[in-house]
Amino acid sequence: MLNEALQYAQLHRDSFLTELKDFLALPSVSALPEHKPDIQRTAQWLAEKFTSLGLQNAQVNPTPGHPIVTAEWLEAGPDKPTVLIYGHYDVQPIDPIELWHSDPFKAEVRNDYLYARGASDDKGQAFIYAAVLESFMQTSGKLPVNVKLILEGEEEIGGPSLDPFIESHREQLTADVAVISDTHMLRPDLPCLVYALRGLCYIQVEITGPARDLHSGQYGGAIYNPIQALSEMLASLKDHDGHITVPGFYDKVVPLSEAERKILAQAPFNEQEFMQDAGVNGVWGEKGYTTKEQISARPTLEINGIWGGFTGEGSKTVLPAKAFAKISCRLVANQDHVEIAELLSQHLKQIAPPSVKVEIKRLHGGHGALIKLDSKYMRAAHQVLQQVFDHAPIYEREGGSIPVVATFQKTLGIDSIMLGFGLPDDNLHSPNERFYLPNFYHGIETVIRYFVEIGK
Amino acid sequence: MLNEALQYAQLHRDSFLTELKDFLALPSVSALPEHKPDIQRTAQWLAEKFTSLGLQNAQVNPTPGHPIVTAEWLEAGPDKPTVLIYGHYDVQPIDPIELWHSDPFKAEVRNDYLYARGASDDKGQAFIYAAVLESFMQTSGKLPVNVKLILEGEEEIGGPSLDPFIESHREQLTADVAVISDTHMLRPDLPCLVYALRGLCYIQVEITGPARDLHSGQYGGAIYNPIQALSEMLASLKDHDGHITVPGFYDKVVPLSEAERKILAQAPFNEQEFMQDAGVNGVWGEKGYTTKEQISARPTLEINGIWGGFTGEGSKTVLPAKAFAKISCRLVANQDHVEIAELLSQHLKQIAPPSVKVEIKRLHGGHGALIKLDSKYMRAAHQVLQQVFDHAPIYEREGGSIPVVATFQKTLGIDSIMLGFGLPDDNLHSPNERFYLPNFYHGIETVIRYFVEIGK
Repeated sequence: MLNEALQYAQLHRDSFLTELKDFLALPSVSALPEHKPDIQRTAQWLAEKFTSLGLQNAQVNPTPGHPIVTAEWLEAGPDKPTVLIYGHYDVQPIDPIELWHSDPFKAEVRNDYLYARGASDDKGQAFIYAAVLESFMQTSGKLPVNVKLILEGEEEIGGPSLDPFIESHREQLTADVAVISDTHMLRPDLPCLVYALRGLCYIQVEITGPARDLHSGQYGGAIYNPIQALSEMLASLKDHDGHITVPGFYDKVVPLSEAERKILAQAPFNEQEFMQDAGVNGVWGEKGYTTKEQISARPTLEINGIWGGFTGEGSKTVLPAKAFAKISCRLVANQDHVEIAELLSQHLKQIAPPSVKVEIKRLHGGHGALIKLDSKYMRAAHQVLQQVFDHAPIYEREGGSIPVVATFQKTLGIDSIMLGFGLPDDNLHSPNERFYLPNFYHGIETVIRYFVEIGK
Repeated sequence: MLNEALQYAQLHRDSFLTELKDFLALPSVSALPEHKPDIQRTAQWLAEKFTSLGLQNAQVNPTPGHPIVTAEWLEAGPDKPTVLIYGHYDVQPIDPIELWHSDPFKAEVRNDYLYARGASDDKGQAFIYAAVLESFMQTSGKLPVNVKLILEGEEEIGGPSLDPFIESHREQLTADVAVISDTHMLRPDLPCLVYALRGLCYIQVEITGPARDLHSGQYGGAIYNPIQALSEMLASLKDHDGHITVPGFYDKVVPLSEAERKILAQAPFNEQEFMQDAGVNGVWGEKGYTTKEQISARPTLEINGIWGGFTGEGSKTVLPAKAFAKISCRLVANQDHVEIAELLSQHLKQIAPPSVKVEIKRLHGGHGALIKLDSKYMRAAHQVLQQVFDHAPIYEREGGSIPVVATFQKTLGIDSIMLGFGLPDDNLHSPNERFYLPNFYHGIETVIRYFVEIGK
């Protein structure tokens, strides 16, 4: 069964790639209302794909937001484990579009990379499972394990639909383990097992000064400018040592043990390369922690966007009525995203000058997670990755957020094995997102071997 | 001659209003490139209008930017003064358009106000002169003074064309005095003579952090966020007492004398009304000065716009590559706008964190001006305003900028008499800009009387 599937996968690389390109051509941008019909078409495309693979009960489940696609195949028998496969079919917006070198929704191969929005995050990685299931079904007519699939369309917007759906479909989603490919390896030759994820708390701040935009020559100098107020508030959120100043922010953070700092320090990390990749001439972060720890094991606060007043070409002498910012925090284990959003909101209201009004909207939230290293499913992942990549996987804390991992733990009582095949320079959320094609094919091989291994 | 002109103006109020509406319907937004053809049409409309009034040499003069319209009538004789009439036919952008209650380019009368972009600033006020000239020419076939007209199309963008044009047409523009209607009265019953104007220095700041937008989960916490840097820089530009912290900023400011502070304090100014009009629950400005002084006699710094990162709907977890701000300073007599722009730029570069790049663009600049109170032309203005409004005019410092007043002083050696007929709540540069129609008609009467008075 293993060899036939591997051989099939090997022979069908081109058709897998062609199909992945079709999948990427659907502009499933979850953040923008104008793409709602595209999201629907993408979900439909997936359900039809799953059905054509021979899976059962493929469904586009409506939610108050974007639909969740489910399917299953449970004929491996009760002695075989049931694997819950999670992925997300939505993608980030494409702006600034002028910086893309090719159409973000017309996938293009250049030098072993496939360029498209969603190529790596997460359509390309999620599509690995379709290729794996096809490779088994077309050669053996069956799978080595029972599988359930769940693909959501709101990951990039932290949509509220997934958690209640999992809660209300607890029975239907019961499984022994979840597998997720939505993380990255450190290098093409260096596989990686993520065992910790950060949570996220994302808010929008609206500052209102005067009731309308004013002429800066007639009112300027005597009224608190909302952009000035917002700038002062944002500037005060970190001290000179990069510590976040929101009272209570660090209270529940589980401190990094010396032992864990040693494990993390073993992962290859080159600060020069990190700086080069980001295009900066220096790093700057929380004092007392290494750059590696800052971006993966410590909570952070970043301003994701800011706007207010006149932003067009030329000069308009306006004292604006409003200013806005988007702020998000990455959280670590034991920080509660609802509580942090509350602390941050209270603090912003407290530090605002009295003559402006502050309104806060919570846009997104998710808890962090820690996965136990010593389980049958982690050991099998270690073994298979070593076999495919000829290198033992590195254990990593991931800086990004996959809130569903915490939800699977909490609601279904299962750990998630994160078989990530992205690379650090995949340009996630940026122009020219890409997926390293050898990793796409290695990913297919890894998952084929993994399913056979845990199905033994 | 006086009575005939006054009577004609009285009888032709409706036709003047209809023509003004036509003028306002031309969307002459100078800041936006897409309106360039409209600017051209507006200049053409004016030249044709002047010709039809019986003026001579009406011309649309091309410049590297928007055209300057000139015309003249010099048959009053060498013993009569020559008056240079200045106005601007360009207007501010209309955004946010959703806050307008009627089409900004379809002037509408509601409760004695004419609502349209440019109604008060400055098309409505400039049109007063067309009505005045028509009233004389249609009744007496001549004017009581020699006139030269100059109307520019770059006032709202501080365009660079006007000063070189005046310089190179020095001979053609020679005059004894200039008159300008581009300021406002304090109340409909309280005329006002502006004797000081502030200068302006307007820059745009571009902060570059990483080379591209980054994923905040993978890079956040270890890289100086350009929005954070910009916020810190902007926040530091004023201290807790509202003083501007740019070194050297105040060095050349002529201090306010106690005598002048007394004159200024006599002008009616109600802080409660000011707050109510602006829609704020408190004022905030430079310590040691009254609100009235802050908005008219002291230099100021305002942030006019800010943008960077993700500003769309929803949440995008990006650590942006760039952040921008527009900053402008109002300057008082003896501050040089080029020097202040330089000081501000140097300071911003100095205070920026070392890991970000700062680029500054100068968008706009103009010098302030002081007009002598004791001249034949000021005295005549005082007398005529008192006659029309039945109240002695208040001497005022204007917070806004009319850079041409400094240019006329410097290049032509003449003072400008500012016969302003706007009102403080005309919503200049804001949605629902308006012009109080009784002031339009009073303005026509005032200028008719003024020309007869100085032509005696």
